[in-house]
Amino acid sequence: MTAEIPQWDVFEAAFRASPPGNPFTDVSFGATFRLGHRAVAVRGFYDGDDTFRVRFMPDTPGEWRYETSSDLEALNGLTGSFVCAPPLPNTHGPVQTTGTFHFAYADGTPYRPIGTTCYAWTHQEDALEEQTLRTLAQSPFNKIRMCVFPKDYDFNRNEPPRYPFEQSETGEWDFTRFHPAFFRHFETRVRQLRDLGIEADIILFHPYDRWGFARMPAEVDDRYLRYLVARLAAYRNVWWSLANEFDIMDSKTDTDWERIFRIIQQEDPCQHLRSIHNCVRWYDHGKPWVTHASIQSSDLYAIPRWRDQYRKPIVVDECCYEGDIHWLWGNLTAEQMVNRFWIGTVGGGYVGHGETYLHPEEILWWSKGGVLHGGSPPRLAFLKQVLDAAPPGHLEPLNDRWDHRVAHIGEEYYLYYYARRQPAQDLYHLPETHAYQADILDVWNMTMTPVEGRFRGKFMLKLPGKPFTAVRFQRVAL
Amino acid sequence: MTAEIPQWDVFEAAFRASPPGNPFTDVSFGATFRLGHRAVAVRGFYDGDDTFRVRFMPDTPGEWRYETSSDLEALNGLTGSFVCAPPLPNTHGPVQTTGTFHFAYADGTPYRPIGTTCYAWTHQEDALEEQTLRTLAQSPFNKIRMCVFPKDYDFNRNEPPRYPFEQSETGEWDFTRFHPAFFRHFETRVRQLRDLGIEADIILFHPYDRWGFARMPAEVDDRYLRYLVARLAAYRNVWWSLANEFDIMDSKTDTDWERIFRIIQQEDPCQHLRSIHNCVRWYDHGKPWVTHASIQSSDLYAIPRWRDQYRKPIVVDECCYEGDIHWLWGNLTAEQMVNRFWIGTVGGGYVGHGETYLHPEEILWWSKGGVLHGGSPPRLAFLKQVLDAAPPGHLEPLNDRWDHRVAHIGEEYYLYYYARRQPAQDLYHLPETHAYQADILDVWNMTMTPVEGRFRGKFMLKLPGKPFTAVRFQRVAL
Repeated sequence: MTAEIPQWDVFEAAFRASPPGNPFTDVSFGATFRLGHRAVAVRGFYDGDDTFRVRFMPDTPGEWRYETSSDLEALNGLTGSFVCAPPLPNTHGPVQTTGTFHFAYADGTPYRPIGTTCYAWTHQEDALEEQTLRTLAQSPFNKIRMCVFPKDYDFNRNEPPRYPFEQSETGEWDFTRFHPAFFRHFETRVRQLRDLGIEADIILFHPYDRWGFARMPAEVDDRYLRYLVARLAAYRNVWWSLANEFDIMDSKTDTDWERIFRIIQQEDPCQHLRSIHNCVRWYDHGKPWVTHASIQSSDLYAIPRWRDQYRKPIVVDECCYEGDIHWLWGNLTAEQMVNRFWIGTVGGGYVGHGETYLHPEEILWWSKGGVLHGGSPPRLAFLKQVLDAAPPGHLEPLNDRWDHRVAHIGEEYYLYYYARRQPAQDLYHLPETHAYQADILDVWNMTMTPVEGRFRGKFMLKLPGKPFTAVRFQRVAL
Repeated sequence: MTAEIPQWDVFEAAFRASPPGNPFTDVSFGATFRLGHRAVAVRGFYDGDDTFRVRFMPDTPGEWRYETSSDLEALNGLTGSFVCAPPLPNTHGPVQTTGTFHFAYADGTPYRPIGTTCYAWTHQEDALEEQTLRTLAQSPFNKIRMCVFPKDYDFNRNEPPRYPFEQSETGEWDFTRFHPAFFRHFETRVRQLRDLGIEADIILFHPYDRWGFARMPAEVDDRYLRYLVARLAAYRNVWWSLANEFDIMDSKTDTDWERIFRIIQQEDPCQHLRSIHNCVRWYDHGKPWVTHASIQSSDLYAIPRWRDQYRKPIVVDECCYEGDIHWLWGNLTAEQMVNRFWIGTVGGGYVGHGETYLHPEEILWWSKGGVLHGGSPPRLAFLKQVLDAAPPGHLEPLNDRWDHRVAHIGEEYYLYYYARRQPAQDLYHLPETHAYQADILDVWNMTMTPVEGRFRGKFMLKLPGKPFTAVRFQRVAL
């Protein structure tokens, strides 16, 4: 009997061996997967307990065969096969870039990120982590930014339950020995996100560190990257975010980041999305190994300019967070967060959420997860609903009239957003050759009001004269 | 008996003469006013009805003597005198620049502009104009932008009751003959503003024109400028705004504007403030004949940068208007208008108001005056009250932390403004050597709540966690 693996799910093969020396460093192990003329070489990994594993995400139905290779006799030349069956329902494959500025799943279904941020949610107690998953399941979020390494920062002084490396009795890290339980836990959370339809934007390095993980030698970084990619690349919802605020990690240079990009690019058989997140100084997202721009900025109106500059999807995954802490990046109102999402959306880009309300037990969503307290998530769900109802294609910014912005999908669909302005009317100029139906959206109060009649060409429309108004025109049969 | 004129009021002498030819163009007429060693030459003007006048605003108490000069025998060598008495109560003289970035009246009293805009209010029927004056008297506004010439634009298609030039039977303007009734009317309104304590920011040219006043020959412009200055310079509340949106007046070049600045500078014995207002392209406010920057922009956070650039007071007199029309510059919410005033204030600059709500009879405050409909004026009155209660000196921006801004007056006074952010606490760092009392201001709801205790050095303060919060620290005795 041959195993059946649905397309874009994880095939895993495990092999037992007891090599002499350190199995993390002294053994090479991998497998080549073949279908027809294709051959995909994949690195395996040591998972503790004399167990070596190799994982593979089949992207094409059919019978895949594999053969292992290793410098350890017992792990070399082992073969097997499995059948890649059609995908499970609601499975669309890994997300890729499309149409220069946008994203789609491998099967062509548009993917429009409505991301959030819980940097250290996998480093908490189980009950809190499970609460986070339940919250996410009810939320509009379909992407989450999360760190591999634990976090040391305000409101984040607790020790994590697990560490990525073995520790000696005197407290020194043995950087040559990974702690498989740490990674098993982390990948369980990634898989649970996958099963909720949520992309895991995995942050490989970050500066908020008291353990030394931000300042490891280059060879340790590289081994860690190869190990992590071997374990995680087969999960279809993985994105690689090389760092959070890379520019304040003073132990790494631009040359280091380039090497890290190259390793990820070489190791990942699925070519998951790759980017790197700035604090003050930006990475040059125009470089060919960057698949999309991952930006920290409050200037959402600049997205069309950045599109022109990078010719890639623009994700402003940090535009400050809804909350009330004193840090400048953590006290947006819910209105501001929602407004920034809409400005980014009609600018042809994508925006990320985070939440930082003071909490008696220091459980702030942006870092530890838990429950959401803010006013923006239901409004972001409304935005998602509007986007999901759009015709095929992607929103492109049409023009740039101060803070009144318009996006469109060809001549099928126009979305005006007035932000905080309160016009009681506006003058529109749509194609003369089609007819359109209009809806007036209150993006804060989450209402959608159809306007009577059909519209074409140049016309004035009465508007509510209130902030947070959007107007949607959808082409209808003449 | 010698006439007594309070300091900074208008002395006027009138003389009758019936010259042959055109008294507007064929007669030179003026007077020199002397006090002690000072001699001030002032141009006079023909006011119709065989009457020539000369006006003078004495800036120094004492007995002033004058002697006329003219190429017309009957107007030459006439002498007289008056006594300049102490100023009337609440009279502080013309406004001048002070301390690089600010304004003060001639007697040293700080002047903090809270300006508004009624471009064409002097070109309406008397009842409406008088209503405008009553509205202004109740308002916080102490400066108004207003055009000399009538205005042709959306919501402004009515003919004005008067024109500045004589018109032939066939409708052609005689640019060599002013219409004194037009100017008498205009200066009456300027004088009424003066008596309300309101500076008249007089716009000499503007592009919104169907009569030809935006495209007169240079010699007509020059004669008009000399005539206007002769009539108006003696009113202490006059400011010269060379143009509204000078950069879209395609009949005038930068050389023309330079000539116009020079004429105003040469003709005005009081050296009233001079600036010029942009649409898209800015005038170089660094030029020596510009006394302050008069800016159209929505980027209030840039004021500290413009201060550094121009080293002059920054007045953003147009940051869009509160209203609900479809034009992009005319549909701010009241919150946005108030927010922009506060951002500008803590940035060490000054902001202007305008209002453009749709009106069944097209009476929009921004152009015709009338009554105010918006929500910002009471909040601007609150801002004015806060500013009036500040210690001597002027607010200078202290730092530039994203959109949290702080202004201070030495170590006496600190004003934090959080705009739309909602921190529930903030960390302050005041001088260790003084003690401060704190007040929390809700600039939208117009409340001021003293915080218990005295503060110094570094400390955390609880805040309301609501937008539109300001915090004021005032030094108190130790």
